[in-house]
Amino acid sequence: MGKEIFSKEMVAECAATLNIPDIANAAIADVLGVAVALESKTGIPFIRMDQGIPGLPASIIGVEAEKQALDAGVANKYPPTAGLPALKSAASRFLKAYLDVDVSPRSCIPGVGSASVSFAAFAITTQLDSKKDTVLFIDPGFPVQKAQLNILGIKHESFDVYAYRGEALRGRLEEYFSAGNIASVIYSNPNNPAWISLTEDELRTVGELADKYGVIVLEDLAYFCMDSRSDFGTPFEAPYPPTVARYTDNYILMLSASKMFSYAGQRLGLACISDSLAVKQYPSLAARYSDSGIFASTYAGSILYTISAGTAFSTQYAVAAMMDAACDGKYDFVADNREYARRAERMKAAFVENGFHIVYDEDCGRPIGDGFFFSIGYGKMSGAELMKELLYYGISSISLSTTGSSREGVRACVSKMTPEMFPLLEERLKAFNSDHSGL
Amino acid sequence: MGKEIFSKEMVAECAATLNIPDIANAAIADVLGVAVALESKTGIPFIRMDQGIPGLPASIIGVEAEKQALDAGVANKYPPTAGLPALKSAASRFLKAYLDVDVSPRSCIPGVGSASVSFAAFAITTQLDSKKDTVLFIDPGFPVQKAQLNILGIKHESFDVYAYRGEALRGRLEEYFSAGNIASVIYSNPNNPAWISLTEDELRTVGELADKYGVIVLEDLAYFCMDSRSDFGTPFEAPYPPTVARYTDNYILMLSASKMFSYAGQRLGLACISDSLAVKQYPSLAARYSDSGIFASTYAGSILYTISAGTAFSTQYAVAAMMDAACDGKYDFVADNREYARRAERMKAAFVENGFHIVYDEDCGRPIGDGFFFSIGYGKMSGAELMKELLYYGISSISLSTTGSSREGVRACVSKMTPEMFPLLEERLKAFNSDHSGL
Repeated sequence: MGKEIFSKEMVAECAATLNIPDIANAAIADVLGVAVALESKTGIPFIRMDQGIPGLPASIIGVEAEKQALDAGVANKYPPTAGLPALKSAASRFLKAYLDVDVSPRSCIPGVGSASVSFAAFAITTQLDSKKDTVLFIDPGFPVQKAQLNILGIKHESFDVYAYRGEALRGRLEEYFSAGNIASVIYSNPNNPAWISLTEDELRTVGELADKYGVIVLEDLAYFCMDSRSDFGTPFEAPYPPTVARYTDNYILMLSASKMFSYAGQRLGLACISDSLAVKQYPSLAARYSDSGIFASTYAGSILYTISAGTAFSTQYAVAAMMDAACDGKYDFVADNREYARRAERMKAAFVENGFHIVYDEDCGRPIGDGFFFSIGYGKMSGAELMKELLYYGISSISLSTTGSSREGVRACVSKMTPEMFPLLEERLKAFNSDHSGL
Repeated sequence: MGKEIFSKEMVAECAATLNIPDIANAAIADVLGVAVALESKTGIPFIRMDQGIPGLPASIIGVEAEKQALDAGVANKYPPTAGLPALKSAASRFLKAYLDVDVSPRSCIPGVGSASVSFAAFAITTQLDSKKDTVLFIDPGFPVQKAQLNILGIKHESFDVYAYRGEALRGRLEEYFSAGNIASVIYSNPNNPAWISLTEDELRTVGELADKYGVIVLEDLAYFCMDSRSDFGTPFEAPYPPTVARYTDNYILMLSASKMFSYAGQRLGLACISDSLAVKQYPSLAARYSDSGIFASTYAGSILYTISAGTAFSTQYAVAAMMDAACDGKYDFVADNREYARRAERMKAAFVENGFHIVYDEDCGRPIGDGFFFSIGYGKMSGAELMKELLYYGISSISLSTTGSSREGVRACVSKMTPEMFPLLEERLKAFNSDHSGL
């Protein structure tokens, strides 16, 4: 007799009601839907490890700046095409302070979250050269980015980086790049879902090959400074997170206020384009958009602004204020986000004690840090099976198979885990393990 | 000796500095750039009729609701995929109150301004049936919408409606629709740039033909209730603005808070999809997006939300509050926006007194109303020439040729015209006329 909390029938029925054909491989929104429906039906709380949402309150500095901007009357004015000058300056300064990278304010362009920033980046990078029409994903990765390509009708290729860390990355990347069809390559650092981080050496390889083959690197920094292994919290002082920007000029860094400042609701991300790429002129862009064809101008004016006429004006003031406060040493967002590392450490321990293992566990020999996500497997169970099986024990996650991973396991997000839920998690994992340890 | 304020050389030099090759046919942003640059260079103010931006303060009801939402802590939460329930309900109620149309809350989906709403609508309507890959514009229209198609690589066709009003519209539309490649048809009512309005009879024709040929109608209501000829200001009482929604179920109505509530800065528009279209299932969508393929679900979840993960959460509360207040008779946005009609009436009189004529002057025999825009011509001067010539007299506008019009003239926006500027306008028009009346 198993110790499940929700019966197989109940979960199956719930998935059917929500039109989810294959719960084991369900997208994040669907898993979330099932967890919420089961909670509301039974009154039994879920351990919600599915959606990657902030688990901390929004920075008060941002909220106050935003209210002030509204009081000052910005709501009736369209935001400037390339973004609020104060935000552009703050972003430039922020990159210098926390990454030791120089990008001028005019090359820092806000969008509606880093979602719209990547969407526009996929569009522009595949419109520069008709032969280069494909985006390469260094997986595992964020499924929504591939979904964005469906809208635009853009092709992609991908590989799981697990078996290609360190020097092996060079050969693998070169296989793709040398085919001549790769327009841009994207990865997240730290990684969603696996929390691995490409190292400076690996990023040097990425940068060198990007230059050799004319590929634009899209570096997704959604979880910026959230790798707990180093203290990145002092502005204008080492250590700094690894970045490809040290090794190539063919890059767009994608910053997001969502996790970094717990500001997901207001939708603001930034494309920080290398100054040398920003001013490059592309005849194909000029022809397509009847504009100057200058990379950053087309990106900002003919693509990003054309899609939405900017992102909320008051939020631009909020993010400018938060970035400036961080640079001034008055807002230690890195320390605030350490809370996720503490939750991760404790959660990982609970999983490991109950027979689970960390799937993506190291960066070229160095154990991964603690942070927003981690990946776990159980015995020889497939990721899809594990994801479904955990649901019966009131734990929601997403299968790594939905993230382009070739490994078996699930992604766990720590953000919704509060102290009072740990006993519940431990109890459920114990039940799970006792039901499955013989398998 | 002419009475120009800015010399031809100065204007040309300014355009060259801003990388504008052809000032006479410049896009709105470029004209704006020239006007601002000349103003700042000389200290002489421009009569700025170029950009269509709100000239009234944002509704205080919106601003207060937005600040309240921020204080309540919404900034750290991703907005719901299909929008804040309170906003969806308010939009549904608002359509009933001000248009006498029934659209259920679930079919009302917010986006990042009506810009992102139309962008997503262009994408989805051309992805339903591989034969229907083209958007038809009933011009004149908003150039940015055609620019959106460039990003997506979607084809379009267009015609100037000037010569096809009333019964002539049927034959003209049928020519396009019967070819079988038209996925959707778009127009704005009242019209940007010409301020004409398709009549109920014309919209019945559009609706009938949309049904006959399976074309989806995108009705852009950016200037909702801003036609001064009727008093649309009493909720739940006739008269109501004309709408295609009375004649077909193949529609998406596009509402925008930008002009209606002077809320352009915060970027919120709504797609209000007919309930019957909303629930239609399309195998092509299911295949492309690996989702249910249900029109409204794919539109909201797989397209609009995938591009930006929603629009600012606090703004969703703001717009919900403004719509509810309007429905409750506590916020007379229609009366507030009458200010534009007053400005238009006086401006049109000044132009006509000085030898200009209104280009698009009637709707099937009925003189057009006063409102946010109007179109003017001068003698036999081309629109491009007139636009450029007016710049020398310190008046900025955009050529109708950039809006898909076949008529010669320019678009004038009234929003920045304040009482103290009328003597200046009159003086400059007099100078213009005295320099050109012999031509």
